[in-house]
Amino acid sequence: MVERRKPIKVNDAVDRVMKFAVSGSVSYLSIEQAYGHFLGEDLVADHDVPSFDRSPYDGFAIRSIDTKNASHTNPLTLEVVGEIGAGSLFEKTVGEGQTVRIMTGAQIPAGCDAVVMLELTQEFEKDSKPHIEIKRSFNQGDNISFTGEDTKSGTVLATKGTYINPGIVALLATFGYKDVPVSSKPKIGVIATGSELLEVDEALQPGKIRNSNAYMIVSQIERAGGQPVYLGQFSDDLSTCYTQVKDALNKVDFLITTGGVSVGDYDYLPEIYQMLGANVLFNKVGMRPGSVTTIAEKDGKLLFGLSGNPSACYVGFELFTRPIIRTYLHSNHQCLQKVSATLGADFLKPNPFDRFVRGYLSYDEGKLTATPAGLDKSNVVSSLGMANVLILLPGGTRGYKRGMNVKVILLEDQTGTTLESFLSD
Amino acid sequence: MVERRKPIKVNDAVDRVMKFAVSGSVSYLSIEQAYGHFLGEDLVADHDVPSFDRSPYDGFAIRSIDTKNASHTNPLTLEVVGEIGAGSLFEKTVGEGQTVRIMTGAQIPAGCDAVVMLELTQEFEKDSKPHIEIKRSFNQGDNISFTGEDTKSGTVLATKGTYINPGIVALLATFGYKDVPVSSKPKIGVIATGSELLEVDEALQPGKIRNSNAYMIVSQIERAGGQPVYLGQFSDDLSTCYTQVKDALNKVDFLITTGGVSVGDYDYLPEIYQMLGANVLFNKVGMRPGSVTTIAEKDGKLLFGLSGNPSACYVGFELFTRPIIRTYLHSNHQCLQKVSATLGADFLKPNPFDRFVRGYLSYDEGKLTATPAGLDKSNVVSSLGMANVLILLPGGTRGYKRGMNVKVILLEDQTGTTLESFLSD
Repeated sequence: MVERRKPIKVNDAVDRVMKFAVSGSVSYLSIEQAYGHFLGEDLVADHDVPSFDRSPYDGFAIRSIDTKNASHTNPLTLEVVGEIGAGSLFEKTVGEGQTVRIMTGAQIPAGCDAVVMLELTQEFEKDSKPHIEIKRSFNQGDNISFTGEDTKSGTVLATKGTYINPGIVALLATFGYKDVPVSSKPKIGVIATGSELLEVDEALQPGKIRNSNAYMIVSQIERAGGQPVYLGQFSDDLSTCYTQVKDALNKVDFLITTGGVSVGDYDYLPEIYQMLGANVLFNKVGMRPGSVTTIAEKDGKLLFGLSGNPSACYVGFELFTRPIIRTYLHSNHQCLQKVSATLGADFLKPNPFDRFVRGYLSYDEGKLTATPAGLDKSNVVSSLGMANVLILLPGGTRGYKRGMNVKVILLEDQTGTTLESFLSD
Repeated sequence: MVERRKPIKVNDAVDRVMKFAVSGSVSYLSIEQAYGHFLGEDLVADHDVPSFDRSPYDGFAIRSIDTKNASHTNPLTLEVVGEIGAGSLFEKTVGEGQTVRIMTGAQIPAGCDAVVMLELTQEFEKDSKPHIEIKRSFNQGDNISFTGEDTKSGTVLATKGTYINPGIVALLATFGYKDVPVSSKPKIGVIATGSELLEVDEALQPGKIRNSNAYMIVSQIERAGGQPVYLGQFSDDLSTCYTQVKDALNKVDFLITTGGVSVGDYDYLPEIYQMLGANVLFNKVGMRPGSVTTIAEKDGKLLFGLSGNPSACYVGFELFTRPIIRTYLHSNHQCLQKVSATLGADFLKPNPFDRFVRGYLSYDEGKLTATPAGLDKSNVVSSLGMANVLILLPGGTRGYKRGMNVKVILLEDQTGTTLESFLSD
């Protein structure tokens, strides 16, 4: 006889899983390798920026008081008494009627309080000495980048868990992070189940399909920031499968299985959870695809029993596994952003359950449009390649029409949002 | 005396560089490593999907004709004569009054033309044989996924140059790409110049700053899809620098230098281009930051002379180097997408030149808002970390007000756009 399962709401399911979210450890990587990782600690400025008053332009450092009466009709002549390359210093003090050639980024010499851009000067020699002519007046502080005007020492510039993009790398270098504290990536085991599965290099056979879920999930884990450990396919024998899962749990931080969670006769996962003594958080979610998604917990370790159907597997991962990975990476923006968009095409199927439709986002005159990416049969993979959003179509309607307002989940976005915001949107 | 340079427009500069864009070679990676690379050839379906008529649900395969008169008041009883797990086959033909238990993904047995979902059946035993009861009628084809209904064999599912995301990985696996043709990544040399530069692990010294550009550019190269080769800092001696550049050009596909392109006395690059006999495409662009960006070409190899100023360096890379990298990777969407958004804050500086302001994009009720990320002094790095767009503020105005319509360039987007579209927007 078949077990009847009671579906729970998607948000309740997310919430239930997130109760078991844990943070991982912190390790150190050299700055050359930090891109694409996640900050393991807050990034803090170790000095003021700029750390000295400096010139933002190539030009001449001057005393503004000398220029008080300078104009087109009354040009001012100054003697060039030295030059300062970026990184070098002018040791003397600049006096009345004097100027110093200064390069971009160099320190303002003592006595000077403004910079004239090179383009506004005329250079010439007088008595074999270099001089410049200036045809306007300057105020104290003109063209000077002052100490600390960008950032004060001690400022937190990015919080732990932040994705390390090229801008963050620039900050890390600026503030002396030769070794960067990064969040250790969780090791996530992947086991594919299904006696219909051929390996990717096998020829097709009647009734069989190639195993695409495992490779897809491995890539999703990488995109989310985890470290995938592909453990191969399940055996056909229950007790062997049980041993496989038990052994896997000792080696990884979380375990994902794809397939085997339905109520079919070859779906071993429910029985394995029982044999393990695992706490099944839910085994049916009120959503399509992915209603059979089952998540269990054993001694604090999560077991994600994702559907064997590729689309359902994909959606289940992004909804339930990704926020667990991002929490492990110390992010407080664990979830993917949910934003409003206009539906770009009719989706007229009756919709008893919340539906997550793969789609692509387009930008038209500042407005977002999300269009379902092809036929959304739950076993279709061809639309997955172009999808960059999941379109959320709440259940309980007869379908949706082009032009309606919908929520979409941004799949490639690294900013993310908090759990609270994800659940309340 | 100082050289006066004539600025060219940003789009003209992009166009001039792109005349020297070349495509790279194709190599093969195992599917486990393909994520994050770029397709070196079109991805083609090697078979119909599904490749056989199959069941999208767990249930029972039936002959629809048997159910013609079935209803709540007139339930139909069928004998269960076998079962088909996913991946296995039913060898006989199903006859009148018979049904076969069928798992999700399994092949429809001969004789059957519809599937009843498990939830709509009642199982029981009669004469020690398994039976089911059905209380409604079904049409031919109900709940069957037909051969080829998703994709026909030979269909191009993604074109060469496409970024390999998890969905593309699923397609590669489905269609038997054990070894994936990927675009070879261009090797891009990076040399940092500037006597003011300290290495990232050095203590600060008066007048000096730590080298952040090199690490930032290395990350930008990775994000764009190139393979960075950090060649260290320039020497202080011109002839040594010349040798460094000449040697570097033999080792890499393109060369990026940061700094040394101004008209300052320590800016060696203009002289080095001359010594090399390189063709300088432009040495001044009508934009801020990055007006001194200089790009030269020697025997078909591009030398990107980016500004030493971090923001200018960042912008110059995304505008000029990234499309060259994506072309090398066989993409016809070489450029970053330019989309419309509402300006989220005043930007009141007079604006003689086109300005590229780092900003972040937010999504409010389906509308895009782009807000400048902090003070936009061109030597400021602290706002780089949160930036996910460049806000384009065309020159010739007295400034921009909150609420105005602006174009923004999406920095983290993998979809991109064609050169034509980028230049016409």
